[in-house]
Amino acid sequence: MQEVRTILLKKSVFEDNDRAADALRAEMKAKGVCLVNVMSSPGSGKTTLLVALIEALKARYRIGVMEADIDSDVDAVTVAKKTGCRSVQLHTDGMCHLDAGMTAQGLAALGEDLDLIFLENVGNLVCPAEYDTGAALNIVILSVPEGDDKPLKYPLVFQNCDLAVVSKLDALPYFTFDLSRCRENVRMRNPGAQVIAVSAKTGENMEALIQWFISKLENF
Amino acid sequence: MQEVRTILLKKSVFEDNDRAADALRAEMKAKGVCLVNVMSSPGSGKTTLLVALIEALKARYRIGVMEADIDSDVDAVTVAKKTGCRSVQLHTDGMCHLDAGMTAQGLAALGEDLDLIFLENVGNLVCPAEYDTGAALNIVILSVPEGDDKPLKYPLVFQNCDLAVVSKLDALPYFTFDLSRCRENVRMRNPGAQVIAVSAKTGENMEALIQWFISKLENF
Repeated sequence: MQEVRTILLKKSVFEDNDRAADALRAEMKAKGVCLVNVMSSPGSGKTTLLVALIEALKARYRIGVMEADIDSDVDAVTVAKKTGCRSVQLHTDGMCHLDAGMTAQGLAALGEDLDLIFLENVGNLVCPAEYDTGAALNIVILSVPEGDDKPLKYPLVFQNCDLAVVSKLDALPYFTFDLSRCRENVRMRNPGAQVIAVSAKTGENMEALIQWFISKLENF
Repeated sequence: MQEVRTILLKKSVFEDNDRAADALRAEMKAKGVCLVNVMSSPGSGKTTLLVALIEALKARYRIGVMEADIDSDVDAVTVAKKTGCRSVQLHTDGMCHLDAGMTAQGLAALGEDLDLIFLENVGNLVCPAEYDTGAALNIVILSVPEGDDKPLKYPLVFQNCDLAVVSKLDALPYFTFDLSRCRENVRMRNPGAQVIAVSAKTGENMEALIQWFISKLENF
């Protein structure tokens, strides 16, 4: 009884959110601002990867960052300090995800005159995948230490992504992680998803990731 | 508006769940069965750690395992095959956490005549911490590759735990993870929590973890 009730409530919340997300996506498209939603587990190296990406892209695009966190501002401070780009912290106050309404609040705080905005979602492979933020692109980061079986266990986030980034590639010698099996697992969930494996620490294969973004932005 | 509505719904769900969890905890206590709720991020090494723990404890206690997963049975099969102990898979069908009602369903499927039951919760540092499962002990696992700052970012799961296990200690040379800072971060959230750092792979310090369980069970 209790479980059924919860699911019904969630459904109505989802429908409201989907409408708000579609409206936000159209608005951003009209302004020519590409919003990228970045999802991953806690500790997958999202912030380190974003800093490296922004360094590589900031001469070409005006970039902003929104960092969602339940209760700290560690990431926003790091990104602002290291890249010098405009950054806001979104405190979710215990919420496990961002929805389109929260994203719109963050965008208003971030201001205008940007080409590319990264939204670092709450570190969580489950709930953020259920709430459309209104982003034009959805990216999931999976780090080598987490294991190549994660697409089997967290289907929705892989099913809904445009790109899966395998991070911490430099840790490959120390963990049993099979990159081909990981690619197969991602493609089982999402045949159209691209998979790019990188190390932000050593720079290995970062160029492929940078080129992926440039090609998406040129065709936005 | 939308956000407020969601939060109110969550509150009433929480209150119902808290009552159900207290009742389940009392029932298990009366039966002399110790239920241990294990929470962590995806890929923290929960299953590997559980297999090692069960191997060390199974001669002394009758152990059962419940593995929660959104959409796979990888873990339940692994645990059953490696330890020979009774194991059930709880498919959450997209839900990001277990509540007391779902836990009770799992316990009914697992059956009687057990001393110790491990509940491997959904891999998620956010939502499982909000729902009391009715467990007697709550454990959070944080793996070295995730970083020592996680107690700052995911306060509730650390605040509510009896024990924080730092896992994948063998990976310490390859990551910037400060064990003392991690202990401080955990204790800032929860001065009473014990922190035990182990490697299930090499066996390093597993004895301390095993002794922690034995002392809890002797005083249950």
